[in-house]
Amino acid sequence: MTVTEVRLTPILVADPPLLNTQGVHQPYTPRLIVEVVTADGATGLGETYGDTKYLDLARPLADRLVGRRVDDLNRLFAEADEVAVDASRVSGRVDVGGLRGVQTADKLRLSVLSAFEVACLDALGRSLGLPVHALLGGKVRDAVEYSAYLFYKWADHPRGVTAEKDDWGAAVDPAGVVAQARGFTERYGFTSFKLKGGVFPPDEEIAAVRALAAAFPGRPLRLDPNGAWSVETSLKVAGELGDVLEYLEDPVLGTPAMAEVAARTGVPLATNMCVTTFAEIKEAFARDAVQVVLSDHHYWGGLRNTQRLAAICRAFGVGVSMHSNTHLGISLAAMTHVAATVPDLHHACDSHYPWQSEDVLTERLTFENGAVRVSDAPGLGVELDRDRLAALHRRWLDDDGSLRDRDDAAAMRAVDPDWTTPAVPRW
Amino acid sequence: MTVTEVRLTPILVADPPLLNTQGVHQPYTPRLIVEVVTADGATGLGETYGDTKYLDLARPLADRLVGRRVDDLNRLFAEADEVAVDASRVSGRVDVGGLRGVQTADKLRLSVLSAFEVACLDALGRSLGLPVHALLGGKVRDAVEYSAYLFYKWADHPRGVTAEKDDWGAAVDPAGVVAQARGFTERYGFTSFKLKGGVFPPDEEIAAVRALAAAFPGRPLRLDPNGAWSVETSLKVAGELGDVLEYLEDPVLGTPAMAEVAARTGVPLATNMCVTTFAEIKEAFARDAVQVVLSDHHYWGGLRNTQRLAAICRAFGVGVSMHSNTHLGISLAAMTHVAATVPDLHHACDSHYPWQSEDVLTERLTFENGAVRVSDAPGLGVELDRDRLAALHRRWLDDDGSLRDRDDAAAMRAVDPDWTTPAVPRW
Repeated sequence: MTVTEVRLTPILVADPPLLNTQGVHQPYTPRLIVEVVTADGATGLGETYGDTKYLDLARPLADRLVGRRVDDLNRLFAEADEVAVDASRVSGRVDVGGLRGVQTADKLRLSVLSAFEVACLDALGRSLGLPVHALLGGKVRDAVEYSAYLFYKWADHPRGVTAEKDDWGAAVDPAGVVAQARGFTERYGFTSFKLKGGVFPPDEEIAAVRALAAAFPGRPLRLDPNGAWSVETSLKVAGELGDVLEYLEDPVLGTPAMAEVAARTGVPLATNMCVTTFAEIKEAFARDAVQVVLSDHHYWGGLRNTQRLAAICRAFGVGVSMHSNTHLGISLAAMTHVAATVPDLHHACDSHYPWQSEDVLTERLTFENGAVRVSDAPGLGVELDRDRLAALHRRWLDDDGSLRDRDDAAAMRAVDPDWTTPAVPRW
Repeated sequence: MTVTEVRLTPILVADPPLLNTQGVHQPYTPRLIVEVVTADGATGLGETYGDTKYLDLARPLADRLVGRRVDDLNRLFAEADEVAVDASRVSGRVDVGGLRGVQTADKLRLSVLSAFEVACLDALGRSLGLPVHALLGGKVRDAVEYSAYLFYKWADHPRGVTAEKDDWGAAVDPAGVVAQARGFTERYGFTSFKLKGGVFPPDEEIAAVRALAAAFPGRPLRLDPNGAWSVETSLKVAGELGDVLEYLEDPVLGTPAMAEVAARTGVPLATNMCVTTFAEIKEAFARDAVQVVLSDHHYWGGLRNTQRLAAICRAFGVGVSMHSNTHLGISLAAMTHVAATVPDLHHACDSHYPWQSEDVLTERLTFENGAVRVSDAPGLGVELDRDRLAALHRRWLDDDGSLRDRDDAAAMRAVDPDWTTPAVPRW
């Protein structure tokens, strides 16, 4: 059960031109694949952000893992605390590209640590013959429901940029959004829908959600402008869409503004931006600023911390579901295992996975009726395709550095040279 | 890994005449020993309260466990919810004898469930060759510190009562308490001290703590009157002992009164009576009513819930340590495993174990320098002595029913026929 080797492989994976309030996804996005090898021959897989600032932390943490027991997980946090974080990597501002709250040294560490924790759990499960969910106390459901994650998008990346072609076409108006939603239901069976907003003026996004409500009557709908709105705009949107929204996600930035919106509307507010660390919970809950916390095992520090977050939410009567950033199948498997163990998971989880045409697995995970079945195979239940990993790593090696750090604003400048990350509130 | 049999063995174990605000410990106290047997031949051990109301719930829950996977722990809670609780067993008042807050159906269920969870973890660990702490993410320390749990006590149980003789003598004044504390340090090496108060008028208990402070300068001291005092009395005691108390434990009953005391003193307040369930956390934390929560895996529902409670406390900047009721070595082993996994455990845990001369283990656990070493053997690392178990069960079978339900007030009536559980605040 001793860790003998930790392999770190940064890759670039194709990403469609998805729009958000900061800009547009670049044609390739960095991810880091972690392999933890144990003395008894098991190899566990983990996955996290692959930008340079994460890679810088991953190597020293990997070195600390070698020689330790693979089940020695609680101590990993103290180990991570000892890995120095370059102060220049910590912006103190809303994480560019990631759109997951204010960036701190602790959050960077936890984001790296999470991939090691998942890889250790995968290796441990393979060694013991147990699925990861069993290492987390066992599944309470056999499948985990996901929502369709709808994006405004262009048909293609800007001209002159090397990119893979996706088959989703453009979605820049209500009709395009509805067409995309139909594609998601036809291909994957999703029955709830989230629209990434903050891209167009609120009236256009209200119209898009109204169009979804008309096309899919009674289905749970969500709108997430990533904090792009003012309190007054948020209240206006909540007023106009209150009858069809399951929740409104991060309409404004920060606990005080979220609390003000929450106090003045009956529409539940969800967040993956104002409650992103355990330290942010106390004030947000005391002020009733959020009604649903969207966990993310990547930046909360792993699957066991995700369970702890869920326990806190349960104790305080706050709902819980799951946030997603661009991720591959290793993380989808990890998300599914932990989500399967959380009672009171009353909202379908988010996942970018349908947007990722590339993966590093021998077999992609599939959605059936909008849900992923919980694997009972040892570990995560997924297998690494080394040829695919090598090819995507080659792309990372060949990159001149321009894509190794996700920058949605830079991508937008390929179309609009004057583009800068918009100040908030944008509307 | 399938559970094939669950054995439930109620026993009566010797208990010294320890005094508390409700009365005195009876000469024998009921406990329930749980054995979970799996298809692959592992037997896991658990232990909980043995009063009739717990036994009534244990059998139907045991029946539900048979045929299930031993690692299927998260679903146990839903199973337990389906076990009916006789309404006449739920007092809605402070639990008599247990002194662990208001009794509810949920708390009864969790108290039974906890023994099954521990037994399942023990069996799972034995099957996998892993210590229980590894199943909880691994120890972050190699030994768990306990405090000396001092009691006012008589030298003997009332005359005419069948009882085992203990060798601690009487402690009914400051000199007796100090002598007892010296005995605890000499035998076990404890370096912090808790006095169970609420027995004598506060001035006498203040004098006892002062005597401890003089005898053991600089050592952490605690006083726990089990909610016997008024707010004003609590503030008087806090004022007089503030310079030597690590914390004051449950000076008053209920969150509002605890909050009032906390607001008016700088002495930290600890509790195992006002925060005893996840549902009680929100209000208590919002009002800053408690500064240290004393967890107890028995009534919080097991070792994993204890970890969750610790995570909540950490997120809210509230301290955590561990409460103890009368228990044997199985529970001490369980307490030690889970305490070993909790970071930020800044207060020595409580344990009654030194008062229990009888146990059901082949080898008693030992305290060295006030601490119990964390076992790395598979499971809990303890072995059942079937002859001892049979003998203590025989005592339970032979009892006429008078001792099968702990009743500290009834025991006191052997000395004082007019004794009834005192109304609170008593002083």
